[in-house]
Amino acid sequence: MSPPHTPLPVAVLGATGSVGQRLVALLDGHPWFRLARVMASPASVGQLYGERARWLQTTPLPDDAAALTLESCEVDDPPALVLSALGSDVAGPIEARLARAGALVVSNAASHRLDDDVPLLVPEINGEHIALADIQSQRFGSGRILTNPNCSSIGLSMALAPLHRAFGVERVHVVTLQALSGAGVPGVPAMAALDNVIPHVAGEEDKLLNEPAKILGQLQGHGISPAQLTISAQCTRVSVSDGHTLCVSVGLGQPASAAELRAAWTGFRGPADVAALPSAPPQPVLYLDGDDAPQPRLHRDLSGGMAVTVGQLRPCPLMHWRFVTLSHNTLRGAAGGALLTAELAVARGLVPGFRRPTDS
Amino acid sequence: MSPPHTPLPVAVLGATGSVGQRLVALLDGHPWFRLARVMASPASVGQLYGERARWLQTTPLPDDAAALTLESCEVDDPPALVLSALGSDVAGPIEARLARAGALVVSNAASHRLDDDVPLLVPEINGEHIALADIQSQRFGSGRILTNPNCSSIGLSMALAPLHRAFGVERVHVVTLQALSGAGVPGVPAMAALDNVIPHVAGEEDKLLNEPAKILGQLQGHGISPAQLTISAQCTRVSVSDGHTLCVSVGLGQPASAAELRAAWTGFRGPADVAALPSAPPQPVLYLDGDDAPQPRLHRDLSGGMAVTVGQLRPCPLMHWRFVTLSHNTLRGAAGGALLTAELAVARGLVPGFRRPTDS
Amino acid sequence: MSPPHTPLPVAVLGATGSVGQRLVALLDGHPWFRLARVMASPASVGQLYGERARWLQTTPLPDDAAALTLESCEVDDPPALVLSALGSDVAGPIEARLARAGALVVSNAASHRLDDDVPLLVPEINGEHIALADIQSQRFGSGRILTNPNCSSIGLSMALAPLHRAFGVERVHVVTLQALSGAGVPGVPAMAALDNVIPHVAGEEDKLLNEPAKILGQLQGHGISPAQLTISAQCTRVSVSDGHTLCVSVGLGQPASAAELRAAWTGFRGPADVAALPSAPPQPVLYLDGDDAPQPRLHRDLSGGMAVTVGQLRPCPLMHWRFVTLSHNTLRGAAGGALLTAELAVARGLVPGFRRPTDS
Amino acid sequence: MSPPHTPLPVAVLGATGSVGQRLVALLDGHPWFRLARVMASPASVGQLYGERARWLQTTPLPDDAAALTLESCEVDDPPALVLSALGSDVAGPIEARLARAGALVVSNAASHRLDDDVPLLVPEINGEHIALADIQSQRFGSGRILTNPNCSSIGLSMALAPLHRAFGVERVHVVTLQALSGAGVPGVPAMAALDNVIPHVAGEEDKLLNEPAKILGQLQGHGISPAQLTISAQCTRVSVSDGHTLCVSVGLGQPASAAELRAAWTGFRGPADVAALPSAPPQPVLYLDGDDAPQPRLHRDLSGGMAVTVGQLRPCPLMHWRFVTLSHNTLRGAAGGALLTAELAVARGLVPGFRRPTDS
Repeated sequence: MSPPHTPLPVAVLGATGSVGQRLVALLDGHPWFRLARVMASPASVGQLYGERARWLQTTPLPDDAAALTLESCEVDDPPALVLSALGSDVAGPIEARLARAGALVVSNAASHRLDDDVPLLVPEINGEHIALADIQSQRFGSGRILTNPNCSSIGLSMALAPLHRAFGVERVHVVTLQALSGAGVPGVPAMAALDNVIPHVAGEEDKLLNEPAKILGQLQGHGISPAQLTISAQCTRVSVSDGHTLCVSVGLGQPASAAELRAAWTGFRGPADVAALPSAPPQPVLYLDGDDAPQPRLHRDLSGGMAVTVGQLRPCPLMHWRFVTLSHNTLRGAAGGALLTAELAVARGLVPGFRRPTDS
Repeated sequence: MSPPHTPLPVAVLGATGSVGQRLVALLDGHPWFRLARVMASPASVGQLYGERARWLQTTPLPDDAAALTLESCEVDDPPALVLSALGSDVAGPIEARLARAGALVVSNAASHRLDDDVPLLVPEINGEHIALADIQSQRFGSGRILTNPNCSSIGLSMALAPLHRAFGVERVHVVTLQALSGAGVPGVPAMAALDNVIPHVAGEEDKLLNEPAKILGQLQGHGISPAQLTISAQCTRVSVSDGHTLCVSVGLGQPASAAELRAAWTGFRGPADVAALPSAPPQPVLYLDGDDAPQPRLHRDLSGGMAVTVGQLRPCPLMHWRFVTLSHNTLRGAAGGALLTAELAVARGLVPGFRRPTDS
Repeated sequence: MSPPHTPLPVAVLGATGSVGQRLVALLDGHPWFRLARVMASPASVGQLYGERARWLQTTPLPDDAAALTLESCEVDDPPALVLSALGSDVAGPIEARLARAGALVVSNAASHRLDDDVPLLVPEINGEHIALADIQSQRFGSGRILTNPNCSSIGLSMALAPLHRAFGVERVHVVTLQALSGAGVPGVPAMAALDNVIPHVAGEEDKLLNEPAKILGQLQGHGISPAQLTISAQCTRVSVSDGHTLCVSVGLGQPASAAELRAAWTGFRGPADVAALPSAPPQPVLYLDGDDAPQPRLHRDLSGGMAVTVGQLRPCPLMHWRFVTLSHNTLRGAAGGALLTAELAVARGLVPGFRRPTDS
Repeated sequence: MSPPHTPLPVAVLGATGSVGQRLVALLDGHPWFRLARVMASPASVGQLYGERARWLQTTPLPDDAAALTLESCEVDDPPALVLSALGSDVAGPIEARLARAGALVVSNAASHRLDDDVPLLVPEINGEHIALADIQSQRFGSGRILTNPNCSSIGLSMALAPLHRAFGVERVHVVTLQALSGAGVPGVPAMAALDNVIPHVAGEEDKLLNEPAKILGQLQGHGISPAQLTISAQCTRVSVSDGHTLCVSVGLGQPASAAELRAAWTGFRGPADVAALPSAPPQPVLYLDGDDAPQPRLHRDLSGGMAVTVGQLRPCPLMHWRFVTLSHNTLRGAAGGALLTAELAVARGLVPGFRRPTDS
């Protein structure tokens, strides 16, 4: 029988925003973690979370969270684990400061994603990249920064990873139909979203060009050797609350049949210890056969919003195959992904002194 | 001073449907044409148009139209000009029958689009293809069938034509974000459209693969020599009332700069007699500079819904360039396009005995 | 320790439709019931449920349900408990036939709601009305029909019941903003719902005029003495997937303060045995303080969609008070409500020979 | 033959906002007026209108307007006619300052609507109230302020005025389903509008309680004697771009039949000189018979968005009648209404030295 387990206290950075609220909601009842501290911008410091956060989740604000007092993001005594939902405009120096103060920071922001010593993690794909963080001791001492990819990059990488492992992926053409929640709060004005498509998402295309190569890359010595693939991306915003839909064409390193692609997706699994994490979906990539699958309203919440769905596989007259993939942008693509990464970090022993409940 | 002009009486076939209603609305006050007869399916025959049509246009149902009695689509005495808004499931034989009865039929349906002796017309692009119809005398005697492309094909072809003329277009990758009105009445259920993307539009991809090559082709002898281009298309439906948005990447026959592409679009004009038609937009393709252009709600109605807009021009890492194009699917892409084609047919003398008002 | 429990096998009537699918989803993992049979219209009979139902729920179709073969609604050997999601156009005789064959039928249809011997049940409000069904032995022998109110009537009655108990409700003015799911499948066309309000819901106003008086009425002898209240209702359809929002003004039998109204709502509880049912919400009516509460997207799913929320309480210049109430129309207002009623019927012994698991 | 006409130069105050842009669009090609100056907040002063305004209209930004340089709202030399689209938070003192500088200011803001010496004008209803402005000479010398009601008040007043004239209106219960454009720019976040109803519009209910009584009141001596009517209002925001839908119940001073109500609406006309104004609709109130009328998408643009539509007339069990009315909130309810009022002011000679073109 395992010894009594004390949940690890965690802090959420940027707790009042959209992704921050998702994290607070997901931490409620989490088997390993306990929300202990909430941090936000100076204007919020000193207020009760329950009074300051305009709660926009569909589950009630947990009483314990509501009673927490908002702290500055620049505390000197961070807890061992900090989940950061800060915007990329401010996250960089704040996260670095907390890492120097000894925290393990798991970040949704873009600020450190492409740093040479920072892993860009999708645990099922590249859990082993977490070892890259060891070299951060030069910058941060005992602290670490781990990052979560952009919400579109995660979905794309999850759909590509099984193909890349099996056949190699060399060329990717992707058009995104992104959800409104990705723009944060207040985000897109309703008058710009209703009966409309916004044909551009600022900064998003660059992320799609750069992040998948690092995610799908190989850990070699003290660095990541990026995957050799060329990506063309056009990003649009559509009138969908949650769930990014991506229309993808791929050129593979070696030919493969439709059945082989499906088998690659369906059989894709992360490392065994990742599959056992509390937030891990039982099957990371689901192939759906229906004429109208995948679609955001019906499929974004499968496996608690942590599974990526794929459908519409057909030959592409220009490359090898084309398909449509869907992922929940604020769960798998942000808060849920960060939580999964935090769980992996704990499971791999990056939080000294804390043993997860399954240890015995 | 020109002689008194008597408007040409026309019939609308499939007058109660979505495109049929658009045609009825556009004919109200048309300088050349007068709605004289309305035809619909057997269940409607004998009823007043004003009572049978569930009018869903934003302009009032014209009184003259409301007072017309619906006739069968299979009349033996069609008027000289028939505009067909029939669905592709039934249009084929009905349109052929009316052509054999001597009518000039301008059709929105897919049935005859790829027939060897039927021109697939976008007047600004390929007005000269209308001469192909001469060989229909073998099938139809004095009658003719002219066709309007699929709503997505029109927008794509309008955006490609200027590039094809100037540089050659060899490869095209397109993802469509199509409007709900394209599905007709009743079309997509609201519960399937709200907060959602439907990742597939039945039959649409095939049309995008085949129609542009014919539209952009060359009239040679008694046939069309199709343009040599390979197209990959993924079609989706989004929560937009009118206006198809297309994300396009192109591989050109010869390199061209962004400035050259813009100049090609901006300078594109149809033949002089097309530009003078009542429904022709002053500038067929508009390039819009804005960060968020083109978008359906703001730009679909430019030039009465007959102009196609282009924006977001950027280098494509896989082909030469990518851009976004938008066109109004029930105006330029259906009713307005058919009307423009009918005007061209009249201007080019395909309706014997009728002189358009500008003749003198 | 309680004896081993065998779940009660139940049939869902009209299993392929929108409410039928909700029932199938809710029965998956239900602690007392097990989906044993699915019944649908003649065109579906003999087909596998998994192949025939176009599954539109956000949870996966359970494998057990998918493997069931659809039966006729007119079987001679119904199981002891039948949950009916048939439309009101066909439900009446089918449900009566099944009751005559000995089944306890819990129905969402309007057909029998106002029958003198049929209770119209919202368990927390009028659980005792179930006794009215005893007199059905004249019509149905051992079979019974219990009915669920219209989806708008349930929400209105839940908001009124606490006020009616405490102060008497004499006059009610209600405007509904109803969700699209209430129109079933295919329901409202997307083009009619997008960027629009439909100012009329056929048949809905009559139900709102008649049903609440029966729901809030008193069981007296062998009949229900209806509550004496006058209702004016205007029903509209808005672009919302689930969740009916009602703007209500009430004239009370005796004056009451805002604090007293809130206390009435907050303190409202059903009978003790109702509160213990598996589908019962812990607090049937929640008063929400926020400026923008209640609203469908954030609050329809509270307590699994079984709680009704109220907010915006303010004095009404014409009657006493006005407020806004929200309820989930396909959970509390249909499938969830029917399940709760079925649970009540079992708890009260209407299904002979079946003991619920909490009995010991 | 009339003498050559020089259009009256006008300024638009708050020209970059939503209503300001509508005014700029409506002034393009206006037969009497010419947009001569544009004024906005200090941050915009000195910039070109075409560069500063984020143009969100569906017609192109007129070249003449684009070339204007934005001026301060606090100029000392305003033109004779100023159309104000300023927000109510800042409009009050700025408009008063311009009036003192001699301008005739027609305002959409709430700031001066209830001032004793300021008419609250809906020209068809109370054109004669314009005479009230004479007493402003005490405050403003030769300048004047005329006001336009709140967007919901206008629609409600237009629907009530014919009934009030014919039968007296004593009690009104109204629930509004308001469009998103009424919230300005950026207005409501898309995530709050999609698949949702917002059950409260700040400040709106008070306006509906107070403005109609003044609009429907009588000019007596140097003041308005308000109509004696009691209004209960609940205001909601729905996912509609333009067009406020109001569900109304009325208690009349004397009983009237449905036919009489329809006749009152249909026969309602403003004073003869109002009906001749360029922006006046031929019939101010249209009664629509359809089951689903009026509805925003189909009917908001009738008569250029200047007509108010009514439908769904039915007996109200609590008051006399109930009905649904719809009006375009940024045309009739804001920019178009202001323009009509400005036209009336010119026609009635409030702009000295300017003769309208129809004078001869």
